[in-house]
Amino acid sequence: MDNIRNGRFKTGMTDEAAEYTSSLEFDKIIFEADIKTNFAHTLMLKKQNIIDSDIANNILGALDQLKEEGYDELIFDPSVEDIHMAIENYVTSKIGSEAGFMHTAKSRNDQVACDVRLVLRDKITEIQIGILEFIEGLVEFAGNHLEDVFIGFTHLQHAQPITIAHHLMAHVQSLKRDYERLEDTYKRVNLNPLGSAAMATTSFPIDRQLTTDLLGFDAYLENSMDGVSARDFICETTFDLVSLCTTLSKICEELILWSTYEFGVIEMADEYSSTSSIMPQKKNPDVAELARAKCTIVNGELVTILTILKAIPYTYNRDLQEITPHLWNAVSVTQDTLSIVTKMLLSVEFNVERCAKLAGKNFATATDLADIMVREKKIPFRIAHKIVGRIVNEATANNLSEDDITSRFIDDIACSLGFEKLELDDNLLQNALNPIENVKIRSVVGGPAPEMVEIARNNIKLFLNEEFEKKGI
Amino acid sequence: MDNIRNGRFKTGMTDEAAEYTSSLEFDKIIFEADIKTNFAHTLMLKKQNIIDSDIANNILGALDQLKEEGYDELIFDPSVEDIHMAIENYVTSKIGSEAGFMHTAKSRNDQVACDVRLVLRDKITEIQIGILEFIEGLVEFAGNHLEDVFIGFTHLQHAQPITIAHHLMAHVQSLKRDYERLEDTYKRVNLNPLGSAAMATTSFPIDRQLTTDLLGFDAYLENSMDGVSARDFICETTFDLVSLCTTLSKICEELILWSTYEFGVIEMADEYSSTSSIMPQKKNPDVAELARAKCTIVNGELVTILTILKAIPYTYNRDLQEITPHLWNAVSVTQDTLSIVTKMLLSVEFNVERCAKLAGKNFATATDLADIMVREKKIPFRIAHKIVGRIVNEATANNLSEDDITSRFIDDIACSLGFEKLELDDNLLQNALNPIENVKIRSVVGGPAPEMVEIARNNIKLFLNEEFEKKGI
Amino acid sequence: MDNIRNGRFKTGMTDEAAEYTSSLEFDKIIFEADIKTNFAHTLMLKKQNIIDSDIANNILGALDQLKEEGYDELIFDPSVEDIHMAIENYVTSKIGSEAGFMHTAKSRNDQVACDVRLVLRDKITEIQIGILEFIEGLVEFAGNHLEDVFIGFTHLQHAQPITIAHHLMAHVQSLKRDYERLEDTYKRVNLNPLGSAAMATTSFPIDRQLTTDLLGFDAYLENSMDGVSARDFICETTFDLVSLCTTLSKICEELILWSTYEFGVIEMADEYSSTSSIMPQKKNPDVAELARAKCTIVNGELVTILTILKAIPYTYNRDLQEITPHLWNAVSVTQDTLSIVTKMLLSVEFNVERCAKLAGKNFATATDLADIMVREKKIPFRIAHKIVGRIVNEATANNLSEDDITSRFIDDIACSLGFEKLELDDNLLQNALNPIENVKIRSVVGGPAPEMVEIARNNIKLFLNEEFEKKGI
Amino acid sequence: MDNIRNGRFKTGMTDEAAEYTSSLEFDKIIFEADIKTNFAHTLMLKKQNIIDSDIANNILGALDQLKEEGYDELIFDPSVEDIHMAIENYVTSKIGSEAGFMHTAKSRNDQVACDVRLVLRDKITEIQIGILEFIEGLVEFAGNHLEDVFIGFTHLQHAQPITIAHHLMAHVQSLKRDYERLEDTYKRVNLNPLGSAAMATTSFPIDRQLTTDLLGFDAYLENSMDGVSARDFICETTFDLVSLCTTLSKICEELILWSTYEFGVIEMADEYSSTSSIMPQKKNPDVAELARAKCTIVNGELVTILTILKAIPYTYNRDLQEITPHLWNAVSVTQDTLSIVTKMLLSVEFNVERCAKLAGKNFATATDLADIMVREKKIPFRIAHKIVGRIVNEATANNLSEDDITSRFIDDIACSLGFEKLELDDNLLQNALNPIENVKIRSVVGGPAPEMVEIARNNIKLFLNEEFEKKGI
Repeated sequence: MDNIRNGRFKTGMTDEAAEYTSSLEFDKIIFEADIKTNFAHTLMLKKQNIIDSDIANNILGALDQLKEEGYDELIFDPSVEDIHMAIENYVTSKIGSEAGFMHTAKSRNDQVACDVRLVLRDKITEIQIGILEFIEGLVEFAGNHLEDVFIGFTHLQHAQPITIAHHLMAHVQSLKRDYERLEDTYKRVNLNPLGSAAMATTSFPIDRQLTTDLLGFDAYLENSMDGVSARDFICETTFDLVSLCTTLSKICEELILWSTYEFGVIEMADEYSSTSSIMPQKKNPDVAELARAKCTIVNGELVTILTILKAIPYTYNRDLQEITPHLWNAVSVTQDTLSIVTKMLLSVEFNVERCAKLAGKNFATATDLADIMVREKKIPFRIAHKIVGRIVNEATANNLSEDDITSRFIDDIACSLGFEKLELDDNLLQNALNPIENVKIRSVVGGPAPEMVEIARNNIKLFLNEEFEKKGI
Repeated sequence: MDNIRNGRFKTGMTDEAAEYTSSLEFDKIIFEADIKTNFAHTLMLKKQNIIDSDIANNILGALDQLKEEGYDELIFDPSVEDIHMAIENYVTSKIGSEAGFMHTAKSRNDQVACDVRLVLRDKITEIQIGILEFIEGLVEFAGNHLEDVFIGFTHLQHAQPITIAHHLMAHVQSLKRDYERLEDTYKRVNLNPLGSAAMATTSFPIDRQLTTDLLGFDAYLENSMDGVSARDFICETTFDLVSLCTTLSKICEELILWSTYEFGVIEMADEYSSTSSIMPQKKNPDVAELARAKCTIVNGELVTILTILKAIPYTYNRDLQEITPHLWNAVSVTQDTLSIVTKMLLSVEFNVERCAKLAGKNFATATDLADIMVREKKIPFRIAHKIVGRIVNEATANNLSEDDITSRFIDDIACSLGFEKLELDDNLLQNALNPIENVKIRSVVGGPAPEMVEIARNNIKLFLNEEFEKKGI
Repeated sequence: MDNIRNGRFKTGMTDEAAEYTSSLEFDKIIFEADIKTNFAHTLMLKKQNIIDSDIANNILGALDQLKEEGYDELIFDPSVEDIHMAIENYVTSKIGSEAGFMHTAKSRNDQVACDVRLVLRDKITEIQIGILEFIEGLVEFAGNHLEDVFIGFTHLQHAQPITIAHHLMAHVQSLKRDYERLEDTYKRVNLNPLGSAAMATTSFPIDRQLTTDLLGFDAYLENSMDGVSARDFICETTFDLVSLCTTLSKICEELILWSTYEFGVIEMADEYSSTSSIMPQKKNPDVAELARAKCTIVNGELVTILTILKAIPYTYNRDLQEITPHLWNAVSVTQDTLSIVTKMLLSVEFNVERCAKLAGKNFATATDLADIMVREKKIPFRIAHKIVGRIVNEATANNLSEDDITSRFIDDIACSLGFEKLELDDNLLQNALNPIENVKIRSVVGGPAPEMVEIARNNIKLFLNEEFEKKGI
Repeated sequence: MDNIRNGRFKTGMTDEAAEYTSSLEFDKIIFEADIKTNFAHTLMLKKQNIIDSDIANNILGALDQLKEEGYDELIFDPSVEDIHMAIENYVTSKIGSEAGFMHTAKSRNDQVACDVRLVLRDKITEIQIGILEFIEGLVEFAGNHLEDVFIGFTHLQHAQPITIAHHLMAHVQSLKRDYERLEDTYKRVNLNPLGSAAMATTSFPIDRQLTTDLLGFDAYLENSMDGVSARDFICETTFDLVSLCTTLSKICEELILWSTYEFGVIEMADEYSSTSSIMPQKKNPDVAELARAKCTIVNGELVTILTILKAIPYTYNRDLQEITPHLWNAVSVTQDTLSIVTKMLLSVEFNVERCAKLAGKNFATATDLADIMVREKKIPFRIAHKIVGRIVNEATANNLSEDDITSRFIDDIACSLGFEKLELDDNLLQNALNPIENVKIRSVVGGPAPEMVEIARNNIKLFLNEEFEKKGI
């Protein structure tokens, strides 16, 4: 056994301690990034004449070879603490002890921070693309339901008629912000800690701008102590994923509700349903339920990460090692869930008749009845509200439907409340009380009228084009 | 492919959905428990004449065989949803389709709840034993330091002299409560959900008391809907682990502080330290740091579990499947951390000279100086406090040490504050100001005086004997 | 200004710092407990001859007077740091500077821990009584619905017929465990830290058993460092409240679902509903929604408390002051929510016809159809499951109802799957498929059969009698 | 009693339910914003000819008057549900029932979302300015300690010499990112939900762009369902505060550590310290401890908010009301803590001699010793590392100091390890081993060399100028 401990300690760690402190389980994720970092750093050392040009070339060659051969070429015996050492051992096996020069003016502290940032920026982009694809699917899906009336809920009670398309486009707006948040976070992820070394930079004349450019970072971190210990970029990304997962959990909740017998609004695809071992009649929305549950994993990971970071003094502390696995888990759970929720929602079949039927129930158009009174008869909204409240109350008590809400019926109620007769036009009334007409007159920007949803869809399509292009897709 | 879906659905899940919803990764943990549950259930079915005696015997034989052959005998192809089905397939492969009888009057819902409880009660006991062993080690460790004076901190500032033993015994009390909490939780874990079936029991004349007895449960759960959906036993256990880990994190924090150059109070064993790749002079308390970090994982898992359970209606929902992996992870992290912190703390070497030196600094005995004034001169505590405050202030400003606090010095200060002379005995004074004497006079139950710590140690030894016996050790 | 700072510091805190560190906002809660603690401590000091008998009597008299006059008699000027000092000032105003003797051998560190424990044990009892009252109401409520059939859900899909009573009794079991958890926690709350003084007890010959007895504690804490810094009793209580609130959030979720137009299972009392300012037809379950939300406050408070305690070294640190407000908030939110959810649920009116109708839908009795095949025809459960799965599939596809499931229909399907005819008795079939008969045959302990629910109710009544008696009600 | 309930319900809420659901406690915060929203909305209604010009002017006049008279003019009797109604009542009292017209085409759902956004954007700006002021103070503070050598820690062990200035500037970088995060969040806060009405816009021809402009929003929310239910802007802001508080908790932790007797690195100002009631010699960093604790409140609030939002279906649910108080609490705790930590840290006095002394201990310059070997003698870093490790080991074992590390001593060790003699220049050696020289040669961007810290300071000053200007300061 020959490792960095030997100079300092007489005994190694116990096996239990070695396993407890090992980061190897998660190091595979940063394998390629670690090569990349070593490559850029070595190239810089060469250009700055810090190490001999031939030695540098040998190192670069070995790193190239390893990149090609892949992770499985690395040898992990008990003396190998982490991926950095395994890679160094590989290079040593190829070019001898001069491999050690690649660690000149570099520490595991700045290297691991650099590696994690390199991997994370790619993961962020992947998730962003996933969001864009979900949005794209939703916009298309909405296109099929522009005029399909549905009931909008507040307090899970019937509120006002909308369309299926309008509802789907609400998710789009939420997802768009989740996308933009990641875009903002990316700026704080894509920063170069390399050159911070252990915590205080180095006396070698390194060129931090060069590694920044070589690695495609936007800038370098301007304080070496901050460089090795800052993990707010991880918290922030994890929070972004929590936010995205909260959006997804809302979608799952609705799918679960809508696929109940009672709501009966959608039919989930068989591919995303299960049955029961003891109740063969069941068609259960298992995927949606599990996704709803898995969304909370990211919440838990955020709490773990934040709790680790609570009151930790400068600079690098080994606690920081424990943060990254929770980041990767959050990333992985989010990616899986985003992918499956995308497919699950886009494969849902809406029962448009049921949707329309619900939209016509429970006086969901009552708001517009009040609005008509205000608009046509110039009575204050609060009075209109009071009259309509009584109308609904009477109609419900006497089992009346929308058809029974005639001008005369309204005037009887108005009078009984001490107001004057309104003498509304019965055609106007029936128009307002009919769900589809009702939706159409709500042609305000952001509203459910088909023409407005179409505008929203077009705006999003422009956004998608721009963003897909940015991401090179 | 021939599974329970076929009767109901035309297509299977997509591979992605199947993987997403699979519990197989964690099912191995409940393998033996699942056999046990099936065994007890089948035995009961036989005794109640619900299934044919010969068939029952065949099933029991096959289960016995599987128990012996072990988990690796199971076949997991893509059509196998979970461990329950894999075990059924195994039994079927041995005795044919009559294997199916073992699921009479039983559902995966009550079965998995039963399995988890069986495994968890053993895990709880394992962790409890771990705590007892830690306590045992601490009591012994304390025995070596009964008279070794140390400084007690409040606000991380020197407060009063204690002994190393007294400090170690504080951890013991905390751990003892962590133990007792698990003991209480055990009562709510060790309850039988079997017989709840999918959620509403069964029309078969099953005997729930019999399976309760066969499986060693204390009682059965008295409502079938509750039986399949209750997961508070998981939350509670996870909380107990959070509490234990909070105790451990306090220990780690102290070890990290004490092993700094500045405190210099302990030397960590090389086995639990690391050095640095770039700073060869370092001896870092990496294990303590990682343990401090890993303790928070359990916090995160608790949040995940609680968030999953938020506002979930009765009864079984697939969300519940996602709870158990977080429980197992919490258990595993706690077990690993408990084990390593035990060994790490017990291998620490106290620098007793440094401890004693710190105990003599900063007028840590000032409280007793005030107490003497109260006791000997019958002045109210608040006045004594004021005089002592001024004494310390003057002494600090003039760089005086404890030796300089003479009766005359005190009287000068008392007078300057407008009080009368105290004329305290100088010997009495020096006794109170000497750390070891100071510790010895604090011979109140729960106090640091060696005789009192010895009493505490003996009380704990009695507790340990009783509890080890309960746990069969 | 004349306070304890003066001896040590030249300047006071800035106003901002004084306000930031002040505990006064929450000190009112411990006002009576603080008097009680001072009273017991002073009595002990007197009995132990640590302070003069006359002085002690004066102090006790002043404390008695304050208790009678109440909190508003205290004077809080900027120099008063906390309630302890305000009470001391009060006593001083009555009996002069000898008031200071009541702090002999006592510190704010042990005193505040003692006060919090005294208050908390009462709060726990109050909450426990609240739970018992809720259970009592539920048991009575269930008594009105023993034979009212309802549908049981798994995955929010129709599973099997149950009764309303059975469902209500599921909540009872859950609440009972929440009660028992608090009972266990009480043991760890009701412990005496007094005598720990600042952290290392005292050289005065105090009698800790006496204050333990006087204050009604079960025992004293056996290590003074632990005595002043242990806050696990707060974490544990808060967790218990989280668990109780999780139970309540489940109830709220169901009420919200059930009161939708789609479910239509209940009518919420007007007292617990709101309407909308713009949609007058709405009847919104606002109280249930807010309760669902407020339940999570306790989760947040638990996280705050646990995060404060992460890696805090011994002994008292000012951080601990920040824990108690979160405890009190958790207590208060839980008490309010428990009270309102109790009243809200007990005032719900079930639409028994709708419940019965849902119970007859969706082949919820299919499990028993399979069971009959197993029981009557001795075919393995898995085969029965497969046949029933196909039956449901066909029936759904062809819009058949339960009445159409004849013996002949079943046999056709069995044959088409390659199995033999079953030739089941049509009466037996129709019995199994009828919800109320179906419920009655599930007469297993813990099952929904009215006789079984009645047994469960009686068991709970016995429990209630015992526990109410324990609590002196 | 005459409120919006009357039309629909026969009974009011119970007092308990009314109090439980009341938002009044927190409505004061949005008082001015609510006037502003009503004003802009009414102006728009007027311009669009939706309401009569005279009526509009009356409403606007009354709102102006209320703004001037202030919150205390509002009347809150039990029939007043919330601030919106109280303001309407005020306007009604001034101009009669025509006040009701101001609610035309507006709902409490879009109004409250609008109000919260208006308040929050100001709070964000306030906090941002607080951060800038902290940074400004730190940059100035650092300017006084550019050449004051200090020890940099990793794992809380001595790592490498830095300067006090370099350490302070690390906080600056962290705070700068906290600032930028809020800047990004602001974009998602400053969006207009008004016009969404209850959830589906309105049939009145409102002009959403106009209210957007009048209220200074960047844009309107493009989907009305999203408009009333989106709360991700609250989660995101709260997370930003968590991130800022994590930065602050790190600072507090260091102040607590540094003010221990053992570290002795700083003297806290008396204004931010306390003493003890029983231990008059204490000077406790109470403010730092409380701040460390209070920082976690924001974590708890984030968990509460996220848990409320878990799996909540569209659109407005009353649960959302419970979110805002937690936001305001998070904002308030953060503001208070930021302010006090700023003043506390900037009033700290560094013990520069102690700092320098620590910098010279424990071979903190060993890294550079290895670097010299690499640079001067072209040996690979790993070999240099090994030699230096042994040097430190020997030196520690034999109690040697930096002065004893001569070229000869080094060569003896190199040979004993099987390497060749290095024959390093002794002057070069002593230069590298001297802390201040050592710091000076680390003149890489981001490094501790005074000239580099000066560059960093200048960069930040430019940043401050720009940002202060943006914020109008």
